[in-house]
Amino acid sequence: MLTKAQVKYIQSLGHKKLREAEQVFVAEGPKLINELLSAGNVQPVSIYATQEFAGRHPHLTSLVEVSAQELERISSLSAPNEVLGIFRKPVFDKPSFKNGLSLMLDSIQDPGNLGSIIRSADWFGLRTIICSNDTADAFNSKVVQSTMGSIARVQLLYADLLSFVAEHRLPPLYATTLKGRNLFEMEPLKEGVIIIGNESKGIGEALLELAAHHITIPRKGQAESLNAGVATGIVLSHLT
Amino acid sequence: MLTKAQVKYIQSLGHKKLREAEQVFVAEGPKLINELLSAGNVQPVSIYATQEFAGRHPHLTSLVEVSAQELERISSLSAPNEVLGIFRKPVFDKPSFKNGLSLMLDSIQDPGNLGSIIRSADWFGLRTIICSNDTADAFNSKVVQSTMGSIARVQLLYADLLSFVAEHRLPPLYATTLKGRNLFEMEPLKEGVIIIGNESKGIGEALLELAAHHITIPRKGQAESLNAGVATGIVLSHLT
Repeated sequence: MLTKAQVKYIQSLGHKKLREAEQVFVAEGPKLINELLSAGNVQPVSIYATQEFAGRHPHLTSLVEVSAQELERISSLSAPNEVLGIFRKPVFDKPSFKNGLSLMLDSIQDPGNLGSIIRSADWFGLRTIICSNDTADAFNSKVVQSTMGSIARVQLLYADLLSFVAEHRLPPLYATTLKGRNLFEMEPLKEGVIIIGNESKGIGEALLELAAHHITIPRKGQAESLNAGVATGIVLSHLT
Repeated sequence: MLTKAQVKYIQSLGHKKLREAEQVFVAEGPKLINELLSAGNVQPVSIYATQEFAGRHPHLTSLVEVSAQELERISSLSAPNEVLGIFRKPVFDKPSFKNGLSLMLDSIQDPGNLGSIIRSADWFGLRTIICSNDTADAFNSKVVQSTMGSIARVQLLYADLLSFVAEHRLPPLYATTLKGRNLFEMEPLKEGVIIIGNESKGIGEALLELAAHHITIPRKGQAESLNAGVATGIVLSHLT
């Protein structure tokens, strides 16, 4: 049984402010929930599940059994799927930027793009993404659902990017732009921070000036640009 | 001024059946509309625009001036932007599969993924995408908006894929799977058809058996899979 207060609380977590105040996020569906439950760095707060899921998880202490109708009331999916969980945000060690690649996102707006970028980072073995404060919130439910569990493995830091660069000893910055060096002629990188810009405006000028290198995915056809998530995947596939 | 019948007609084009019966699609925003107006193979049926856009296009005969409130009624964008146009579907020459690369999509469901795949195909110079009948409709407004005009440059064919392969002399089929040859060890291809599978189920078994080659994007981290649009972009960036 769900109480009115529980429904209200879960719905309130649709707002970034509330998620930040509570330091929690919402995830849905048995596959994702199981992945988060088995990740060592994400603690469940409460799991709301139908009998089907509950029956398969008899030892889960944080589980509240709900009806399909109740799940529908709290779900943000068009097809609610057995279970919704509230989790504490993942805990990570202090990030290291040396001896590896990291991503820096300058104002990525679309939650779907952010989700696919987090998943690509995880696929190619990156551990850290530094996001500008105006990048979409990684704990937005659309992002969480599209990361497929990578949200527990990739550390996301939100910061003012110019201050972040000034205050940290980062390896060289590689800005992805439309007029840089041919990506396909570059060797894989041992370390570096790859900057991806906003979907329509690209990378901010001041940040662009701090980048030691500009790199470009050569165009062979006529499209004006690539989707930001696709561009990130291509860059990572060549430089890792 | 908009008539009730016009509003109803435009709203009806949100349905695939109606778009197919009329052989038209809807696009929005000045940038995309200008791109479509200057493409040689897409004819406008009617353009509904606010004074702002209308003032910049005094010679457009198919233009109906509307108020911002009227545009809001017919727009499917959260922020309607100056203009909405109804266009006839693009006209293409008979597709050729020889001496080049094409894509084959086996049940891509997400309109955002399909949009970014069309854009990537256009960026890397592909001319044709063969889609299974259950792939998302390319003339769905979400797809059209996310292709950024590539919808007029890349030809989309919908077919039963097994019959299509049987009935056409296609160059070798390359299936992207999780257990194929390392993409990064392959040379660019002169000709071929690259098959991309469904977001969760991958490529259907019968189609998989027809593929002469299986290729894989090697994983360096822990994510279970890549977003289908990202994977397509990475494959095209290596094989074109």
